[in-house]
Amino acid sequence: MHRNIETFIGCDNNYEESKIVVFGAPFDSTTSFRPGTRFASKTMRSESFGIETYSPYQNKDLEDINVFDGGDLELCFGSANKSLEQIEQFTSNIIEDNKIPCMIGGEHLVTLGSVKGVLKKYPDLHIIHFDAHADLRDDYLGEKLSHATVMRRVWDLVGDKKIFQFGIRSGEKEEFLWAKDHVTTNKFDFAGLNEAVEYLKGKPVYFSIDLDVLDPSVFPGTGTPEAGGVTFKELLKAIINVSQLNIVGCDINELSPIYDQSGTSTATACKILRELLLSIY
Amino acid sequence: MHRNIETFIGCDNNYEESKIVVFGAPFDSTTSFRPGTRFASKTMRSESFGIETYSPYQNKDLEDINVFDGGDLELCFGSANKSLEQIEQFTSNIIEDNKIPCMIGGEHLVTLGSVKGVLKKYPDLHIIHFDAHADLRDDYLGEKLSHATVMRRVWDLVGDKKIFQFGIRSGEKEEFLWAKDHVTTNKFDFAGLNEAVEYLKGKPVYFSIDLDVLDPSVFPGTGTPEAGGVTFKELLKAIINVSQLNIVGCDINELSPIYDQSGTSTATACKILRELLLSIY
Amino acid sequence: MHRNIETFIGCDNNYEESKIVVFGAPFDSTTSFRPGTRFASKTMRSESFGIETYSPYQNKDLEDINVFDGGDLELCFGSANKSLEQIEQFTSNIIEDNKIPCMIGGEHLVTLGSVKGVLKKYPDLHIIHFDAHADLRDDYLGEKLSHATVMRRVWDLVGDKKIFQFGIRSGEKEEFLWAKDHVTTNKFDFAGLNEAVEYLKGKPVYFSIDLDVLDPSVFPGTGTPEAGGVTFKELLKAIINVSQLNIVGCDINELSPIYDQSGTSTATACKILRELLLSIY
Amino acid sequence: MHRNIETFIGCDNNYEESKIVVFGAPFDSTTSFRPGTRFASKTMRSESFGIETYSPYQNKDLEDINVFDGGDLELCFGSANKSLEQIEQFTSNIIEDNKIPCMIGGEHLVTLGSVKGVLKKYPDLHIIHFDAHADLRDDYLGEKLSHATVMRRVWDLVGDKKIFQFGIRSGEKEEFLWAKDHVTTNKFDFAGLNEAVEYLKGKPVYFSIDLDVLDPSVFPGTGTPEAGGVTFKELLKAIINVSQLNIVGCDINELSPIYDQSGTSTATACKILRELLLSIY
Amino acid sequence: MHRNIETFIGCDNNYEESKIVVFGAPFDSTTSFRPGTRFASKTMRSESFGIETYSPYQNKDLEDINVFDGGDLELCFGSANKSLEQIEQFTSNIIEDNKIPCMIGGEHLVTLGSVKGVLKKYPDLHIIHFDAHADLRDDYLGEKLSHATVMRRVWDLVGDKKIFQFGIRSGEKEEFLWAKDHVTTNKFDFAGLNEAVEYLKGKPVYFSIDLDVLDPSVFPGTGTPEAGGVTFKELLKAIINVSQLNIVGCDINELSPIYDQSGTSTATACKILRELLLSIY
Amino acid sequence: MHRNIETFIGCDNNYEESKIVVFGAPFDSTTSFRPGTRFASKTMRSESFGIETYSPYQNKDLEDINVFDGGDLELCFGSANKSLEQIEQFTSNIIEDNKIPCMIGGEHLVTLGSVKGVLKKYPDLHIIHFDAHADLRDDYLGEKLSHATVMRRVWDLVGDKKIFQFGIRSGEKEEFLWAKDHVTTNKFDFAGLNEAVEYLKGKPVYFSIDLDVLDPSVFPGTGTPEAGGVTFKELLKAIINVSQLNIVGCDINELSPIYDQSGTSTATACKILRELLLSIY
Repeated sequence: MHRNIETFIGCDNNYEESKIVVFGAPFDSTTSFRPGTRFASKTMRSESFGIETYSPYQNKDLEDINVFDGGDLELCFGSANKSLEQIEQFTSNIIEDNKIPCMIGGEHLVTLGSVKGVLKKYPDLHIIHFDAHADLRDDYLGEKLSHATVMRRVWDLVGDKKIFQFGIRSGEKEEFLWAKDHVTTNKFDFAGLNEAVEYLKGKPVYFSIDLDVLDPSVFPGTGTPEAGGVTFKELLKAIINVSQLNIVGCDINELSPIYDQSGTSTATACKILRELLLSIY
Repeated sequence: MHRNIETFIGCDNNYEESKIVVFGAPFDSTTSFRPGTRFASKTMRSESFGIETYSPYQNKDLEDINVFDGGDLELCFGSANKSLEQIEQFTSNIIEDNKIPCMIGGEHLVTLGSVKGVLKKYPDLHIIHFDAHADLRDDYLGEKLSHATVMRRVWDLVGDKKIFQFGIRSGEKEEFLWAKDHVTTNKFDFAGLNEAVEYLKGKPVYFSIDLDVLDPSVFPGTGTPEAGGVTFKELLKAIINVSQLNIVGCDINELSPIYDQSGTSTATACKILRELLLSIY
Repeated sequence: MHRNIETFIGCDNNYEESKIVVFGAPFDSTTSFRPGTRFASKTMRSESFGIETYSPYQNKDLEDINVFDGGDLELCFGSANKSLEQIEQFTSNIIEDNKIPCMIGGEHLVTLGSVKGVLKKYPDLHIIHFDAHADLRDDYLGEKLSHATVMRRVWDLVGDKKIFQFGIRSGEKEEFLWAKDHVTTNKFDFAGLNEAVEYLKGKPVYFSIDLDVLDPSVFPGTGTPEAGGVTFKELLKAIINVSQLNIVGCDINELSPIYDQSGTSTATACKILRELLLSIY
Repeated sequence: MHRNIETFIGCDNNYEESKIVVFGAPFDSTTSFRPGTRFASKTMRSESFGIETYSPYQNKDLEDINVFDGGDLELCFGSANKSLEQIEQFTSNIIEDNKIPCMIGGEHLVTLGSVKGVLKKYPDLHIIHFDAHADLRDDYLGEKLSHATVMRRVWDLVGDKKIFQFGIRSGEKEEFLWAKDHVTTNKFDFAGLNEAVEYLKGKPVYFSIDLDVLDPSVFPGTGTPEAGGVTFKELLKAIINVSQLNIVGCDINELSPIYDQSGTSTATACKILRELLLSIY
Repeated sequence: MHRNIETFIGCDNNYEESKIVVFGAPFDSTTSFRPGTRFASKTMRSESFGIETYSPYQNKDLEDINVFDGGDLELCFGSANKSLEQIEQFTSNIIEDNKIPCMIGGEHLVTLGSVKGVLKKYPDLHIIHFDAHADLRDDYLGEKLSHATVMRRVWDLVGDKKIFQFGIRSGEKEEFLWAKDHVTTNKFDFAGLNEAVEYLKGKPVYFSIDLDVLDPSVFPGTGTPEAGGVTFKELLKAIINVSQLNIVGCDINELSPIYDQSGTSTATACKILRELLLSIY
Repeated sequence: MHRNIETFIGCDNNYEESKIVVFGAPFDSTTSFRPGTRFASKTMRSESFGIETYSPYQNKDLEDINVFDGGDLELCFGSANKSLEQIEQFTSNIIEDNKIPCMIGGEHLVTLGSVKGVLKKYPDLHIIHFDAHADLRDDYLGEKLSHATVMRRVWDLVGDKKIFQFGIRSGEKEEFLWAKDHVTTNKFDFAGLNEAVEYLKGKPVYFSIDLDVLDPSVFPGTGTPEAGGVTFKELLKAIINVSQLNIVGCDINELSPIYDQSGTSTATACKILRELLLSIY
C-alpha cells in the first residue's frame, strides 16, 4: 500500500526530473491586519483538484511538463528571522540544482527569504512585483521585517531601478514619494508593462505576485482587500507577458483562506498558479 | 384559512392558464467536487422576494405573464438513473400539454432528463449551452452518468452539430479535441452567438444555462468556480438574444447555496430566471 | 491614562476645528428583506484601519484635512419616527455650526432625517441619489416611512425636479412611471451625470449614496443585492465628479456587515468614505 | 399538477380537522442587539424535514395528530403596533374556532399580540414563560413596545401573580426587584416548576418559550445568547411537564437563523416544536 | 527532496509494521439532507495537527504505536454500488494482512462495504453501533442502498441479535418496532453497554461510530444534527469500554466539515479517532 | 460634541477613581495553529452591550464599582520581545498606582508580560492557571517565547510549586512528566481547587484564564479547541472561588472571534469578564 502523497494538481513528478519546484511558506506572523495566509499552500493543494491540468488559454497541460511539489516548510511562528533563513536556504538549494523555485506564501514578507536565496546565483536580479500595496515602508511600528516593508528590504539588496511595481493603489504618501527615486511604480494597473518587459529581456527576473493586485470582487480571500484592482483576465495576460522573460524565481502570496468563505479566491489562486507554471516552463 | 403556498415570485398562476412551468430538480449525487446544488430551487423560491417582478431591462413584468411553479420533484439521492427518469417523465407531461418546461437544477446532469422529455416531441432539437465547463467527457471514473459527461450524453441523443456551447473555459484537452468534430464550442465568451442564433432561427431549441458561465466574482455560489467568466450584463444580453428563438425547453443549473454565504449568487440566479421567463414568454 | 477613543481612520480632529462631521445612524427597523445595516458604522470604524489615510487617486490625505467623528447616535429600534427626529436634530446642529454632516447609515430611510436637518438652512436643496433601487413607493405594506419609500418622502419635502437618481435598476413598474414626471431617473449607470452636475453648479446639494449601486460582486454585504451594478472605479469617478458641487450634506448607506463575510464590502465602504471626505473637503 | 405547499413536517392537515394551528410571525423590528428572528418560521419549515415525525420520547407521531400550518403572516417591518394587531386578530380567529394557536416568532414582542388574542376568550389567563431574559422593563429607550418589555406589557393585561418565569439569568437589577412583587421569577433553571404546574392545574395557560432559555452551546442561533442556560433534555422534560396543563395558546421565539451557521439551532427548534405539538395535543 | 506525505497525526508508520490501517472513504451520494461528509477524512488529516499525539486520558501516545494512514480511496460519486465494492476490496486486503481497518467516512452507508470486507474472515461478526439514528429502514424512496438503510443492510448479512445500537434517538416508528425483534436498540444513551460488552467478550466485533451520536452542541458539523445526544466524556468512556473487546474493524462517520464553521467538530472527531486508535491497539 | 469613547460595558470610570484597569493586548504572532485572538478585546468591547451590567449570580452591578478601560495596546506583530516589554511596562504602571491590571489577550503568551509587570511589586507571586493546555514546553520549534511555552517561562520567573493549573487535558507526555516536579497540575477539571484556594489564602495571586478551559461546545471561538472541557457554570463557580484570594493581577485569553461565527463565544467571554471583575473587586 502507498503512503498518502498530496501535491498541487499535476505536480507529481520526481525532483530530479523537474524544472520547477513548488513549495509552501506558511508564515504570517507580521501580518498586522487580518491573518490567515499560513493556510494558503495547504488549501491550494487540496482545492487544486477542482480545476483541470489543461489550459485552454495557453493550450498547454501540466501533465506534459515536469514540476515537483516539495510540500510546506515547517516555519517557526513568531520568528521572522528564523523563518526567512529557512526559506532562503531552501530556495538556495533549488537554485543550486538549476531549478526554478516557485513559492506559495504566506504573507508577502516571505519573498525576502526567497529573493535572498536566488540573489546568490543571480547578483543582477531584477524584480517584477504585482501588488495592491507598495510595501515600501522603512519600518512598521519600529520593526524592519514586515509584510509592509518587504519591497524596501528587497531594495536594500538589489538597489535602485531594479524593482518594477504594477497595480499599486495603496500606501502612505511617503512611500509613493520615496518610490519616485528608487523603484518604478506603476499605479492602478499594468500600463507600462510592455516597456518594462522590453527593458528586462535577457536579464534574470524574480517575479512576485501579491494576489491582492486582483480586485476584491475576484479575490476576496486576502488580509487587506483593496478596491479598484485588476481583473482575472488582465492578470492572466500580464503573467503570460512577463513569462517570456528569464524568470529565475517566483512566488504568489497573500491568499488567506479564512476570508475565502466561498472558495472562489482559492480556486482563482490555483488557476493562476497553473497558468504561471505553464507559462514560465 | 389558506394553506402555505410557496412559488418563485410572480409565478403563482394556475397550471392550465400558464405557458411556462417552472420546477425544481434537487439532485447533486454525481457532483464530484463540492455539492449543494440540491438546495438551489428551494432557496431561490424563498429569496426571490428580494427582487421585483418588473424588469427595467425588458420593460416587462412577471405579473403580466402566466407562469406556474410546480415545486420540486422528490428525487432519489444516490440513484442517477431513477432521478433522470422522473425528470424525463415530468418534462414530458409539460411538453404534451403544450407548455415550456423551465427546470431549476440541481447539478447539470439533470439536463439529460429534461432533454429526453423534450426530444420525444421535438426530434430535431438543437441545444444552446452556456457553461464554464465543456461537460463532454465520455465517462467520469468509469461512470457514464455524471455532471462532467452530460453534454456528451445529450450528444448521444441529438448527434453531431446540434450543440452550441458558449463561455467554455475549462475541460480536459481531449474534450476540446473531440468537440471540434462534433459540437460547436465557443471558448471564453459569447463571440459567435449572433451567427448561431441566425442559424437556429425556426428550429426547436433547448436552452441550458450552467450559471458558472458567470465569473466567480458575480456568482461565487457554485460547486466548481472557474475564473475568467462573463459578466451579468453580458449574460443578460445573451439570454435576450437567444430568447428570440423557438425555445421549447430550458433550465438553469449549478447554484449551490452552501457556497453563497452573502446570498448574492442566489439573488443573481433569481434575477436571471426572471429575465429568462420574461424573454422566452 | 487615556480613555479609548474610536474614530474612522484619520478623523480624530476636534469638533471645533473640523469642517466635516462624520456620524453613524445605526437603524434598520423598516428593512423588509435582510437586516444588519445597524452594524455598518461601528464596523467601518474598526475596519478602516485596514486602509491608508492617503489617496493615490486624489493625491490627498485624511491627515491633512479636519474631520470630526461624533460616534453613533443611540436610536430607538422599532420607532422610525423617533429615530428620524434624533437624526434631524443632530444634523441640524452640525449645519448650524457651518459644518457638513456626513452620515453613515443604517438603512436608507435615515436619509430622510438628515435631509430634513439640512433643508432648514438650505430650502433650495437638490438631491443627488446613487442607488440600485428607486425607493419611490408611496407606501410599503401601508407604511409611509420605509427604506422603500425614502426618496418619495424626500420628494414630499423638496418637490419636483429636485432629485437626480443614478444607477437605478430595480423598482416596481409604477415607480418608474411616477418618476418620469417628478424626478430625474438615470437607469443602470452614470450616463447623464455630467449634465446633472453642470445644471446643479452653484446650488446646494445633498449627496446620498446607497452603496448597493455597486455591483454585488464588488459589494455583496448589503440587504438587497441587485446584479448589474457599477464598478468601484465608475463609482469613484462619479463621486469625484459630484464633489465639485456645493455639497452641504451627504451620507452612505446600506452596508450590512452580517452579509459581508469576507470583509471586502466593509473595506470598500471605508475606501469610498475616504474618497468622499477628501473630495468634498 | 399541484401547487407547491410548504408546511412544517407532518402539519399538512386541513384547517377544519385540526386542533392546533401553527403559524409564523416574522417580525424583529424592535430587536436592539442582533436581528434575524424574522427568518425563523420559514427556515424551520424548510429544515423540519431533517427530523422525523415520530418522537421516541413520547412514543407519538405527528402523522397521527391533526395540525394545520397556516404559513406566515405578512407583517409590516418598522411598525410594532400594526404587526401586533395583525397577530392579535389572527390568533383571535383561531381561538374562536376552538383551536390552539401555536405561533413561531419572531422576536419575543410578538407574544403580546398572541396573548391579547387569547385573552378575549380566557380572561383568567395565566402565563408560563421560559426565557434567559426577564423582559420586564417598563420601557426601552423610551419605547413601551419592545422585546425587552414584552412580559411587562403582558403583566399590564393579566395583572399580578399570573406570570411564572423560569430559566431567567439576565436583566437589570430593577427588573428583578420589580418582579418580586408582581410575577414569579425562577432564576437559572426549572426548580419550582412542579409547584407551578400543580398550582395551575385547571386554569387556562398560555405557554411562551423564548428559545434562548437553552444554553448557547445548544442554541447559538439567537440574537442575545446568554451563557449558563438549560440543556435540551431539561427543556424537553419541562415542556412535557407543562403540557399536562390546559394550554390554550403557545409560542416559541427568538431563533435567528442568521446566527445559526451550522443549522443545529434550527434543527433543535424543530424538534422542540414537534415535542410541544405532540405533548399539548 | 521529499514528496509531501500527509497523514493523520502520529500515523506515519510503514504498512508492514502497522497493526491498524486508517483510510478515508469520501462518499456521500445518498445523503438525503445535507451533504459534505466526503470532506471528512481530508479535513481531519489536516486539522489533526491541532491536537497532541499523547492522551492524558489513557496515558498512551500515538508515537508509541504503529498505525498506517493509507490516504483516501478514489470513489465514484453517484454510484453507491461501485463505491461499496471498492471499500469492500480495500478492507478485505487489510484484513487478509491481519491488520485492523479503521475507516473514516463519508456517510454511514460506507460501513456496509467495510463490514462486507471484514465478514469474509469473521463470519460470526457482531456489530456495536453508536448513532443518533436507527438507520434501519428497508428502503429510502425506493432505494435499498442509503445512509438511512445501512444497518438494515448489515442485518441482511449478519442476521438477528448481532447488532447492538446505542444512543438512538431518531427514526420512523416502524424502525423502532422492527428493531424489537431483530437488533438490540438502546435509546438515547449508553445504558446497557456494560451488559453488551460482557456478552460480546471473545467474539469478533465491528465497531461503527456515527459521530452524530454526540449532542449537536459538541458536534454541530454533521448532516442531520439531532438534539439530546451524549457528551464527549460519555462517548470517550464508552469507546474505551468497547475497546476491551476483540475489535476486528471499525469506522467513524458523518463529520461534514461544511457545517463545522468553527472547526470544533473536526477537532473533536480527531480526538475521538486518536482515543479509538489508542484504545483498540 | 463628544468624541466617541468605547469601553467594555459598565467600565467607563476615570482612571484615578478606579480600582481595576481593563486593557487589551492584541497579539497572536506565535499562535501556531489558528490565529485571530488579536481581535478579542475589540470585539468584546463592542459585543459587551449584549449583556447586562448586573449579575444575578453575585447580585452585584458593574455600575456600582469603579473600573477603567484603557483600550488596546498598540503591539508590534511579528515581534514577541517588543510586545512583551510593552505589556510589562503598562502593567507595571498600573501596579505602581495600586490598581489591579485585568488584561484581555491575545494569545496566552501575553500573560508573560503581565506577570513580569506584577512580579516586581509582588516577588512572592503565585499563579492560578485555568487552561485546556499545559503550556509547559521548554521551546516550540526552537523558539523560547511561544503560546505553548508561556507557563514554562512564568515558572522560570516564579520557580517551583508556585503555579496551580486546572482543567488541563492536552499536552505532550513530557510536559505532564515535567509538571510533576515543578507545578501543581489538576487534569480535566477543578477538583483540587478548594485545597489550592485554602493554601493560597493571604498570598498574592495572579489569575490567568485561558478560555479554552471551557468545553468547545460552550466556547468554539478559539484557536485550539479541545473537547472534554468544563461547563460555564463550573467555570463561574471556580472564578468566584478563586476571587476570595488576594488577586493582584489577572487576564483572560484566547478568544478568537474569527472562529466564533455565531458570536456565542464572545458573549460568553464578556459574561466571564463581568463576573471576574465583580468578584475580584
